[in-house]
Amino acid sequence: MKKFAIVLSGCGVQDGAEIHESIMAMLAVDMAGCSYQLFAPDVEQFRVVNHLTGEKVSEKRNVLVESARIARGNIKPLGEYRAADYDALLFPGGFGAALNLSTYGSDGQRMKVNPEVERAVKKAYDQKKMIGAMCIAPVAIAKILGKGVLTIGSDRGTAADIESFGAKHENSGKGEVVVDANNRLFTTPCYMLNSTIKDIFEGATNLVAQMVNAMR
Amino acid sequence: MKKFAIVLSGCGVQDGAEIHESIMAMLAVDMAGCSYQLFAPDVEQFRVVNHLTGEKVSEKRNVLVESARIARGNIKPLGEYRAADYDALLFPGGFGAALNLSTYGSDGQRMKVNPEVERAVKKAYDQKKMIGAMCIAPVAIAKILGKGVLTIGSDRGTAADIESFGAKHENSGKGEVVVDANNRLFTTPCYMLNSTIKDIFEGATNLVAQMVNAMR
Repeated sequence: MKKFAIVLSGCGVQDGAEIHESIMAMLAVDMAGCSYQLFAPDVEQFRVVNHLTGEKVSEKRNVLVESARIARGNIKPLGEYRAADYDALLFPGGFGAALNLSTYGSDGQRMKVNPEVERAVKKAYDQKKMIGAMCIAPVAIAKILGKGVLTIGSDRGTAADIESFGAKHENSGKGEVVVDANNRLFTTPCYMLNSTIKDIFEGATNLVAQMVNAMR
Repeated sequence: MKKFAIVLSGCGVQDGAEIHESIMAMLAVDMAGCSYQLFAPDVEQFRVVNHLTGEKVSEKRNVLVESARIARGNIKPLGEYRAADYDALLFPGGFGAALNLSTYGSDGQRMKVNPEVERAVKKAYDQKKMIGAMCIAPVAIAKILGKGVLTIGSDRGTAADIESFGAKHENSGKGEVVVDANNRLFTTPCYMLNSTIKDIFEGATNLVAQMVNAMR
């Protein structure tokens, strides 16, 4: 049975992992007959947003603790990730990917990446594991690796930022997956496009199918 | 296009709506070619639980505000629900259904139901709408209506509590749906059984299919 490590970044699109994308990634892996282990960095969230009003609030929340809501408690600190134990590393999107896993959402091209995320991606890449990323998450992959062919849909500014890091951006539509076979990178746009939840299901399912196929 | 009203109870299995069940309900409705509007009561959560440790914490959170994470902000207070505007009313599970929508989780057979939840179910029932409930949520339906055939899987204590309210309990397995055609009630056990996420997908898909079929 092939094993996925899925990295969450909180619980909620505005300040954490996009919940639909996270759940669809988990569902797609389970439906493909593979297993998954969830991870998240044990750090404070960049911000906490009231998702009803869209306004930032003064609370503090922890990325690992909030991610545990999506995980039903079954989650490990990202520092415990060992690339050798998994066949694939997968990042759902949401502002958490751009604010908690990296600083792209606040710093743009001058972004930094959380050191544990950087280590996980580099180790997975060096050990020739499959790396998947949804929605905005491919930006951090481009920043870390400085190469690869990736998609975040069709947003020109974000695509330009990805190319500024040395990677190449390819436009994609709903549910589509961009495969970089040389670098074993798999990306799909999800809510970077105007989608409904079944589009996210389709994107996640296609993404995982391509990743599993490439493991053979 | 048939319309579902889906009632959330927070965001996280231990103190709110079970996230997998909520998302699978939304996905199943979208895949069935129907639309959904999310609702939640605008009340304080009964408790807040750290989902990493399983321990209760001293924080306060609001059910509607936290439910908005699952909803990506697109959610209404349950007080605004009008049965005439929807073809079906659907309740995902989680401890939120047993602690925020009702007091079953703390009071057992002496439970009370949130007045807005009671009103919503009674109005939907009186207007002959389809009523669906997942996991532990059927208990509140039994309490409100005092009749009907429902399932929460096979837990004997919970089944006995349901029958104490005047309803009948039928055992069910993973992904199965109990249909009470006379009362237009549709229930499926989800995480009341030892399930993986694809079992929840199967249960939600079967539930919504039966509900849509009964609308014809």
